[in-house]
Amino acid sequence: MKDVVTLKDLMIYYLQSLLDTESKWCEAIAEAMERIKSPELRGLLIRSAEVSRHHLRILGEMLENLGFKKEFMQGVAVKGLLIEVNEILQAAADPEVRDAAFIVKHQCINHYKIAQYGALSSYANLLGEEKLAAILHHLLLEEKESDAALTKLAESKINPQAQSPLIM
Amino acid sequence: MKDVVTLKDLMIYYLQSLLDTESKWCEAIAEAMERIKSPELRGLLIRSAEVSRHHLRILGEMLENLGFKKEFMQGVAVKGLLIEVNEILQAAADPEVRDAAFIVKHQCINHYKIAQYGALSSYANLLGEEKLAAILHHLLLEEKESDAALTKLAESKINPQAQSPLIM
Repeated sequence: MKDVVTLKDLMIYYLQSLLDTESKWCEAIAEAMERIKSPELRGLLIRSAEVSRHHLRILGEMLENLGFKKEFMQGVAVKGLLIEVNEILQAAADPEVRDAAFIVKHQCINHYKIAQYGALSSYANLLGEEKLAAILHHLLLEEKESDAALTKLAESKINPQAQSPLIM
Repeated sequence: MKDVVTLKDLMIYYLQSLLDTESKWCEAIAEAMERIKSPELRGLLIRSAEVSRHHLRILGEMLENLGFKKEFMQGVAVKGLLIEVNEILQAAADPEVRDAAFIVKHQCINHYKIAQYGALSSYANLLGEEKLAAILHHLLLEEKESDAALTKLAESKINPQAQSPLIM
C-alpha cells in the first residue's frame, strides 16, 4: 500500500476502497440473486444493484476529477465479507432461513459502506470540497435507506417465515 | 460450515460469529493502542476494549444457556477487517492522519457488529427469548454509542488536526 500522509491521501484511500467494494458487491448481488426465494427480497436486490452501479460511477468520476486513476484497492475486508455471503448461501438448507441469513450479510455490507461514506463526507467538507461532501452524504443516505428497507422486510415477513416455514 | 436449517440455527451461527469478532477485536485494540496518538482516542479505545470483553462474556453465557459450546466461527470477514486495520496503521505516515484513518476502521467494526446484533435481537424475539432479545438490543445500543462517540471526536478534533497538523 502507498503511504498515506495527508487527509487528502486518506480521502483517496477510502474512495478507492469503496470503488472496490461497490464493484465486487455488484457482481456478488448478481450471483446471489438465483439463490434468493422471496420476490420482495429479489426486488430489493435489484434496487441494491442499481444503487451500487450508480455509486461506482460517481466514485470513479470523483477520483478522476481529483486527478487520480480509478484504481481499485483490492481490499481484503470486502473479500472476506463476500466469502461469508457465499458460505451462508451454501450452508442454509431452508430457503426461508437462507433469505433471512442473506439479509444480515447484505446489511453487513451496507454498514461497512455507511462507516466509510460518513467519514468521506466529513473529509471532503474539511478539504473545502463542499459539492463532493454533499454527494457523498447522499450516497450515505442511500445506504441507510437500503439498510432500513431490509430491516423492515426481515421483521415484517422474512424472519417470521423463517421461524415457521410450514404454517406461513 | 455446519448446515443452518432453522432460525435457531441461524441465531447460533450469528452468536458464534460475534463471539469470534469480539474476541479478535479485543486483541486488535490492544495492538493498535501503541500506534494511537490522541489521548481522547486512546480513552475511547480503553472503553471499546471493556465493552468488547463484556460482550464476549455475555455471548459466551448465551451460547452455554442455549446448550451450545462457546465455539468460535473463525470468520474471514472480521479477519479481513482486522488486516485492513493493521495495513492503515502501517501506511499512515502522519500521526494525526493515522488516528483519523483508524477511527473509520474502528467504525467499520462497530457497524459490522451493529448489523448482526440487530438481527440477533429480532431472531430472539421471534423465538420467544424475550430476555435474550432485550440483552442483545442493549449490546446493539452500546455499539451505536461507541460509533457516535468516535464520530463526535473525529469531527470535532481528530479530522481537523489531520487536515492542518501544523497549526492545531
